[in-house]
Amino acid sequence: MRAWRVAIAGATGAVGTEMVKTLERRNFPVASLKLLASARSVGKKIRFKGEEIAVEELTHEAFKGVELVLSSTSGALSKEFTPSAVKAGAIVVDNTSAYRMEPDVPLVVPEVNPEDVKWHKGIIANPNCSTIIAAVPLWPLHKAFGIRRLIACTYQAVSGAGAWGIYELAEQTRAVLNGEPAVPKKFPHPIAFNVFSHNSKVAPNGFNEEENKMMNETRKIFHEEGIRISATCVRVPVFRAHSEALHVEFGEVVSVEAARAVLARAPGVKLVDEPGRNYFPMPIEATERDEVLVGRVRIDPALDNGLALFISGDQLLKGAALNAVQIAELLTG
Amino acid sequence: MRAWRVAIAGATGAVGTEMVKTLERRNFPVASLKLLASARSVGKKIRFKGEEIAVEELTHEAFKGVELVLSSTSGALSKEFTPSAVKAGAIVVDNTSAYRMEPDVPLVVPEVNPEDVKWHKGIIANPNCSTIIAAVPLWPLHKAFGIRRLIACTYQAVSGAGAWGIYELAEQTRAVLNGEPAVPKKFPHPIAFNVFSHNSKVAPNGFNEEENKMMNETRKIFHEEGIRISATCVRVPVFRAHSEALHVEFGEVVSVEAARAVLARAPGVKLVDEPGRNYFPMPIEATERDEVLVGRVRIDPALDNGLALFISGDQLLKGAALNAVQIAELLTG
Repeated sequence: MRAWRVAIAGATGAVGTEMVKTLERRNFPVASLKLLASARSVGKKIRFKGEEIAVEELTHEAFKGVELVLSSTSGALSKEFTPSAVKAGAIVVDNTSAYRMEPDVPLVVPEVNPEDVKWHKGIIANPNCSTIIAAVPLWPLHKAFGIRRLIACTYQAVSGAGAWGIYELAEQTRAVLNGEPAVPKKFPHPIAFNVFSHNSKVAPNGFNEEENKMMNETRKIFHEEGIRISATCVRVPVFRAHSEALHVEFGEVVSVEAARAVLARAPGVKLVDEPGRNYFPMPIEATERDEVLVGRVRIDPALDNGLALFISGDQLLKGAALNAVQIAELLTG
Repeated sequence: MRAWRVAIAGATGAVGTEMVKTLERRNFPVASLKLLASARSVGKKIRFKGEEIAVEELTHEAFKGVELVLSSTSGALSKEFTPSAVKAGAIVVDNTSAYRMEPDVPLVVPEVNPEDVKWHKGIIANPNCSTIIAAVPLWPLHKAFGIRRLIACTYQAVSGAGAWGIYELAEQTRAVLNGEPAVPKKFPHPIAFNVFSHNSKVAPNGFNEEENKMMNETRKIFHEEGIRISATCVRVPVFRAHSEALHVEFGEVVSVEAARAVLARAPGVKLVDEPGRNYFPMPIEATERDEVLVGRVRIDPALDNGLALFISGDQLLKGAALNAVQIAELLTG
């Protein structure tokens, strides 16, 4: 297997840091690794396979000689720099929302639609974290029983907002326990001992961007425009794994036993479903794990052929860095 | 208006404490107030209208001369003591689940079915907290558009588990911030920086008791056996207000404007729905408020005539003590 000249754009962020670790942990064939970030991180050193690599500035010229870019910047920065990377001959696996819904950009969850990487034109988009985490267990159920409707309610960790989200939760919580007010800095509202509707812009349809991503990206990944989806996305005071309550209607009769059997053999899924001792997926147990934990499998009486589930998945790993590296692995195959 | 000889059973608990305050705040016509609790709280003093009242032991004889009991003990204690209170001639407003689904016991949310208090036979049941908080905004929408299906996902505060739930969240959170483990004491799992499926027993249908309460009690309160309901109930690290994502299908076409207009004039509801600045109901703002905050009103494309909402309500007030006192007020009317 040949080795790749890799760059990580946004290497010092919460996701970028996990991308470096994930490349090492999965032994991705790296010939060389360039770590790119904004000017203020230049010179910072990050360890990769026992070596200290100095962070370089993300510029249009930085992609020279690079074959693969794992990008986790902002949507705006991705729009600015991704074309330069493609022009330099690199394939970009982009973790931002910049290109996800472009018709000529594949949007890939390797457990779901690995074949879509084949038609890329330089950019492959990594889906939204909540979308990926739901797609992994829903896809095998869709193949078995045919999903018609999905209502998803999320319990999202602060890591989705980057390293500052993690810092802000810790700082505010400390303040409240000391009898001081929780002062929001980057989040619009206090997150300590609170929940709030996801802090992305609300679109004219009343759904916020996070919800619209889940609704639109899931249909694109599944190649099923007919699935009816709605979502409520909510931030909760949890550090780094997202949880979701999924209420699903299928085209065919589904039983708890049949659904559990499908999930038990599904790639990327771990069944955590012990009603007897009230033991189900929890974000603290999904943290730093590759698998999406799935449980609370039960018949949903509000829907025809309905099934309800509860899932937890690491937002920084399967929701971002791991999925991106898995996409890159498909390219090496 | 005549004054009542009142007793509070479970007066030292999280809900009992709020019952005392709520009777005073709403100026309920109290002739005398007896505060009943377990033996270990006897002698403890609680302030009511400037007077210190000593807690007495909850015994079968304690109800002599009492006309109205507000009871917030456990289901088991209610089964034991409520019959004695009724035998002594008192009307019992019971906050436990002991009698809620008994056909000869009215289950009342004053904004929904006040007329049901008329057929009580000594016991009036106060519904489950998550049920009440959803019922207040859903009832006027039901009257206007006819609810057919409801999928509810909850974000429940620890106060629902009583005073110890509040203590456990604070203690565990402090431990985690100090780099120590979150050791669960009464909850089955860590609650600090975590969420978990509601810690009530899981029934054979796969739903836990909290979820089954929401599903069954809502139909009883609304007198609508045909509404299809499912729920996912989840504990979140929030102190005392519950939030819920509600996805609702109606029998008639509903618009965002029409739904908002109905909610804006509904009793017990406060519309908090400002998409432009991402400002919606939050548990920290519902805390110590009487109204259920309602927002995120939007068309739900996954359901026919669908509407999605997000609500927050104080679990100890409208979810328990306030609703019980409002039921008592119906008796004085």
